[in-house]
Amino acid sequence: MSAIDRFWAVIPAGGAGTRLWPLSRASSPKFLHDLTGSGRSLLQSTVDRLVPLAGERIMVVTGAAHEDAVRAQLPTLPGDQLLAEPSPRDSMAAIGLAAAVLERRDPDAVIGSFAADHVIGDLPEFEACVRAAVEVADEGYLTTIGIAPTHPATGFGYIRMGDPLPGRDRASAVREFVEKPDSERAAAYLATGEYRWNAGMFVVRAAVLLDLLARWHPNLAAGLREIAAAPERLPEVWPGLTKIAIDHAVAEPAAGEGRVAVVPARFGWDDVGDFASLAGLLPQTDGMPGVRVLGDADLVRVSDSSGVVVPAGGRHIAVVGLSDIVVVDTGDALLVTTTERAQAVKGVVEGLRAEGRGELL
Amino acid sequence: MSAIDRFWAVIPAGGAGTRLWPLSRASSPKFLHDLTGSGRSLLQSTVDRLVPLAGERIMVVTGAAHEDAVRAQLPTLPGDQLLAEPSPRDSMAAIGLAAAVLERRDPDAVIGSFAADHVIGDLPEFEACVRAAVEVADEGYLTTIGIAPTHPATGFGYIRMGDPLPGRDRASAVREFVEKPDSERAAAYLATGEYRWNAGMFVVRAAVLLDLLARWHPNLAAGLREIAAAPERLPEVWPGLTKIAIDHAVAEPAAGEGRVAVVPARFGWDDVGDFASLAGLLPQTDGMPGVRVLGDADLVRVSDSSGVVVPAGGRHIAVVGLSDIVVVDTGDALLVTTTERAQAVKGVVEGLRAEGRGELL
Repeated sequence: MSAIDRFWAVIPAGGAGTRLWPLSRASSPKFLHDLTGSGRSLLQSTVDRLVPLAGERIMVVTGAAHEDAVRAQLPTLPGDQLLAEPSPRDSMAAIGLAAAVLERRDPDAVIGSFAADHVIGDLPEFEACVRAAVEVADEGYLTTIGIAPTHPATGFGYIRMGDPLPGRDRASAVREFVEKPDSERAAAYLATGEYRWNAGMFVVRAAVLLDLLARWHPNLAAGLREIAAAPERLPEVWPGLTKIAIDHAVAEPAAGEGRVAVVPARFGWDDVGDFASLAGLLPQTDGMPGVRVLGDADLVRVSDSSGVVVPAGGRHIAVVGLSDIVVVDTGDALLVTTTERAQAVKGVVEGLRAEGRGELL
Repeated sequence: MSAIDRFWAVIPAGGAGTRLWPLSRASSPKFLHDLTGSGRSLLQSTVDRLVPLAGERIMVVTGAAHEDAVRAQLPTLPGDQLLAEPSPRDSMAAIGLAAAVLERRDPDAVIGSFAADHVIGDLPEFEACVRAAVEVADEGYLTTIGIAPTHPATGFGYIRMGDPLPGRDRASAVREFVEKPDSERAAAYLATGEYRWNAGMFVVRAAVLLDLLARWHPNLAAGLREIAAAPERLPEVWPGLTKIAIDHAVAEPAAGEGRVAVVPARFGWDDVGDFASLAGLLPQTDGMPGVRVLGDADLVRVSDSSGVVVPAGGRHIAVVGLSDIVVVDTGDALLVTTTERAQAVKGVVEGLRAEGRGELL
């Protein structure tokens, strides 16, 4: 299969990943790390996965602080396909900037946004979904790819599907986007079979996205188009842009008007949200049943233990008699917790920030 | 109270302390470390505790590999009060060498041997016991100080007490020394009230010790006396000396002949045998209920956890949601276990040795 005509993959590379501290840091966030033991960072894997669909039409949007690191990881990416945000302005500004730039290059461009720090299991199914989504997007829909939920997760937003689109077997209308639910509501969503996880995958014609945005946030749309027309205006215009997620800015209001479609996906998807999630993604380590090692397994010795060990500090690590343990060793900080408490790692980072220990964040 | 006339404190400074890996190493064993947060190493604390009893009459016996480290920790110790063993020859040779050297200096010297890596709680009671033991030893007894057992420990040998010595309210005859028991036998020992832990504290006239040794191990006694008479013969004679513990060599057979006495002690005693033991010795850390930190508490952040944390590697350590956890961080190695499994740390060291990872031992 060849790359899709006029299709641009947009990769917003942001997000702190505080639940993966001390591996993920403000200065070296999640997407720059190889978290699956594949030898490629999450960002690199995201690009690898999109090249068969977009060819060389890859656009990465990242914070200015990470521009050099992204360039180092993607040495063949042309200079004009990496957009650096002077400051974080949330997902609408990031994806919208790419849309505005690409709209100028090709008024018929279709863009697909895919976060730089997610993991996807079944590539042929992923490709099929994106191809289907591009076809629907070409008709003018804001098209999302909805992940089949595997459990009543409370950490994701949900997409409520409506009727199938006429003449399409892989796409339905979207009734609404719903915010992260509590566990009771999440279970109720799953029971209906109508809901999909919102993984932030939006496929849409660049011009359609900006035109929709112009209806609800005209200043934001105008600002983005102004920067695309005159890139030297970026430093001046950017700080004044509205800070809002693409879901709230465009997807939710457009769904209310029947302008949003969803392609329900069957591929495995993981946002590597915490170390419990990471443990599930890593392969078993030879000779250590129940233990997953991310890094050099020769540094790790376990006895009577299970869980995940990350020897990223070069030190030898011995774990004795602990179940579902999480040990993450880095040069300057060490985390010890359990997979069950993996979400609580965020609190450690908040505590360090409150104490002014910025050097560890 | 002044120092005891003719009394020499002998401090055998040896033992690997493998259950305290990675803090204690072959190159830097337990006695060189401050394991109580007092600011003094176990060796220094041992000396501090004996100075009121022996004044400047302190004799340290250590392995040649640790001679420089001991000298650095005890800068005021005269050069001729530090004996370096060319190779490990067990406790009889170590204490016997000190006895032989001191016998030549003063034929009436009374020596008391006290391991360099034990912790003692009640110093006035300790001093009273040693003073009582020296009086008994002066009469020709090999006198031991027996620790009141607090639980049916299986890791120590036991001393079975006999009748009180005539005219002495603090000393009894020793019926026998028994090896480390299983837990059933240990419980039975405790129930009788007749047993004390053998902490290797022997108080005896130097000449009596060597004369007793000469009866059961004449070559060993002769070799030690030969080295004392001609120190330059040490390298040649030492390697041929019998490797045997003082308990087996002298204390057990002498007990059979009624030559051994015991002063039962009431002071708290701990051999800091593992990290569970260490946890019990450390003070509570401010602001971290249930957690003991050995080292800089500013490096440690705990949440919903209890146990002991040793930040000896300079890294920041975060522990979330773990009870009775043991985290020991050093420059090149990290241990994570529980106080319950503290004894199993020995197995880690054995595994590393079997794998030829000598640099970590």
